[in-house]
Amino acid sequence: MTITDIVVTPIAFRDPPLLNSAGVHEPWALRTIVEIRTDSGIFGFGETYGDIAHVERLRAVAPTLIGLDAFAIGPMHQRVAEALRGQTGDDRHGLTGKISAPGTIDRVYSPFEVACLDIQGKAVGRPVVDLLGGAVRDAVPYSAYLFYKWAGHPGDEPDQWGEAIDPAGVVAEARTLINQYGFGSIKLKGGVFPPEQEIEAIRALRDAFPNIPLRLDPNAAWTPESSLKVAEALNGVLEYLEDPAPEIAGMAEVAAKAPMPLATNMCVVSFEHIAPAVAVNAVQVILSDHHYWGGLRRSSHLASICDTFGIGLSMHSNSHLGISLAAMTHLAAATPNLNYACDTHYPWNAADDLVVPGALTFVDGSIPVPTGPGLGIEIDRDILARLAENYRTCGIVQRDDTGYMQRFDPTYERKRPRW
Amino acid sequence: MTITDIVVTPIAFRDPPLLNSAGVHEPWALRTIVEIRTDSGIFGFGETYGDIAHVERLRAVAPTLIGLDAFAIGPMHQRVAEALRGQTGDDRHGLTGKISAPGTIDRVYSPFEVACLDIQGKAVGRPVVDLLGGAVRDAVPYSAYLFYKWAGHPGDEPDQWGEAIDPAGVVAEARTLINQYGFGSIKLKGGVFPPEQEIEAIRALRDAFPNIPLRLDPNAAWTPESSLKVAEALNGVLEYLEDPAPEIAGMAEVAAKAPMPLATNMCVVSFEHIAPAVAVNAVQVILSDHHYWGGLRRSSHLASICDTFGIGLSMHSNSHLGISLAAMTHLAAATPNLNYACDTHYPWNAADDLVVPGALTFVDGSIPVPTGPGLGIEIDRDILARLAENYRTCGIVQRDDTGYMQRFDPTYERKRPRW
Ligand SMILES: [Mg+2]
Ligand SMILES: [Mg+2]
Repeated sequence: MTITDIVVTPIAFRDPPLLNSAGVHEPWALRTIVEIRTDSGIFGFGETYGDIAHVERLRAVAPTLIGLDAFAIGPMHQRVAEALRGQTGDDRHGLTGKISAPGTIDRVYSPFEVACLDIQGKAVGRPVVDLLGGAVRDAVPYSAYLFYKWAGHPGDEPDQWGEAIDPAGVVAEARTLINQYGFGSIKLKGGVFPPEQEIEAIRALRDAFPNIPLRLDPNAAWTPESSLKVAEALNGVLEYLEDPAPEIAGMAEVAAKAPMPLATNMCVVSFEHIAPAVAVNAVQVILSDHHYWGGLRRSSHLASICDTFGIGLSMHSNSHLGISLAAMTHLAAATPNLNYACDTHYPWNAADDLVVPGALTFVDGSIPVPTGPGLGIEIDRDILARLAENYRTCGIVQRDDTGYMQRFDPTYERKRPRW
Repeated sequence: MTITDIVVTPIAFRDPPLLNSAGVHEPWALRTIVEIRTDSGIFGFGETYGDIAHVERLRAVAPTLIGLDAFAIGPMHQRVAEALRGQTGDDRHGLTGKISAPGTIDRVYSPFEVACLDIQGKAVGRPVVDLLGGAVRDAVPYSAYLFYKWAGHPGDEPDQWGEAIDPAGVVAEARTLINQYGFGSIKLKGGVFPPEQEIEAIRALRDAFPNIPLRLDPNAAWTPESSLKVAEALNGVLEYLEDPAPEIAGMAEVAAKAPMPLATNMCVVSFEHIAPAVAVNAVQVILSDHHYWGGLRRSSHLASICDTFGIGLSMHSNSHLGISLAAMTHLAAATPNLNYACDTHYPWNAADDLVVPGALTFVDGSIPVPTGPGLGIEIDRDILARLAENYRTCGIVQRDDTGYMQRFDPTYERKRPRW
């Protein structure tokens, strides 16, 4: 099962004008599809970020992995580390800024590992979840991921979801997503409007959906003081408050007094952040994400760490397609202590998915774990080619939510915390 | 790959009169061999403790695992937990005393998990190391595990190793083991004689083997004060000092001033001990042991935890045979941060091994990782039957080093700390 060939294909797919604390999503979201081929004829897929610097790192690393056995994912991690030689990166997705050298290794390694697990599963006739210890749940619940959004990209017709810039719009959007997918949890991406307005939106959601767990994620848009005001106002309303304030120190300050758990995908995003965060009890929930925690096996280690240190575990998402959704689902199904519904952007981007329909279908807000070998999905190579062509023609090579916002509001400033 | 049958076979094999802080090894060491059979005809083996209470728990749990898929080790862990319903146990091996409920689950689960990984590997035609992420080393170094010992069991002829009750005897024993196996590290089981004598033994080893890493393990026989005197006396001589004083608090007190890392297989023996130990920096090296850390996959989580928290990782052993040695070797080969030579009692018990010779052979102190499917070993069922007969006739159903010592020295008291 020797790796003979690796194809790295950056792609672009349509993305609605979703607002966040750094600006607004551009019309195209970027990803990279990694395909690994072996001498046995079996191939596997992984999906990762599509920013140009990341694509270049993937392309630099890929040739060093040729000749490895597809089961040798530990040695593969070592080779990625050697090939990157301490490089660091910039994160334009989790909005965390600088990425450490170990974090950069884990990000680059991830799609290769997922592709190898896809190959391993196909080789042994087993779904990836079985390579991770077997399914402790048959279906993985996801949350309705709400965004403030414009009606459509400026100059375009309104999109199918329409505008959501106030509590009523947010509630309407929630209804649309829940009616279509059956989600049983709701997350609102905040950090867009002053905290008072976002508190109102959460209260409107609570009124509209009295029994559905709610989360709010302003992406560190608030000072610790503002964070605590929101936390007090939403006491008893949120299951967790996600990244209210920047950095481990800011989160620890909030956590000491907040009445609900704090979650993060910003201040603890690599293994070296865990010990400092534990030392000051900065976070009570870590949002796992195999794209930056070094693939599925290393994410299962993260889960064990959370279990060991009494930290909750949820799952983070960026704009993604079905390969990532399949990988997330296999991982979550194998992870006993993943007790929150996972985040996913999938509904916003599903129309452009390159996975052949059928394997990934929401049932009551959950994805039943694919049962076919490997990731259990098939890739439509015509769509892959079309998305690759999008990448070549869309004019975007790295995500820039702030720059896109400034095109329409030249006074807009990136600022964290903003309130 | 459904589990159809589980056979739990307690066995006994000959053990030399090895001394420790609780007494002396009896003439028979107990283990249990677990065999899992599946509807595909593939079977797998695990090895664990043989004390009667543990055997009874294994037998109570086994029927609840029938019908599980051999890849469903996560669900299997949950079933073991349900079957045990909070039972706790007594440890008579790691000399740790009471075992917590989670620790008891992990101990009972371990041989079933190893047997399932053996089955999985056979089913997919891969060695177990490949199911753990692939080999980051081709051979696993073990240490020469020295014991103070009597010439033979009272009433018997001297055994092949002879007496070792002073520095000269310890050095001679080291030469015997190193000549035969090629070990490149030495561990001395201490806690038998007053600390000054054991310091002299270590100094004699250092003189005789100037370049070989040395460790000393008195199994918590010393107060923190005595521990610090030994630590000072052996500054620059030991690569680590293992369990000098009892409990996390005692170890933390020693660790704060000791010039070398402290290792443990006594005060951190289950996942729930890790956070309290980290909080006070009680230990700098954890001795992994898949027999009580819940099998190979959970031991790989432990490795990741150690890596994440800057804790060293070594490997603990009890008296064992080749199934355990194979499992330890696959695990260690897949674990990048296992940077110390592993402990093993194997040389003391190898003559009674039930593994067909050839797959597990020391080369320069290391075991080359078996390359056959699963654990890569074959079991001699005639020997298994003979060892099972030993168990039925030997008269021992639970280890009692102290009681055995008291037969020859009625004044002997179990006492910890002793000095
Ligand atoms: Mg977030
Ligand atoms: Mg020990």
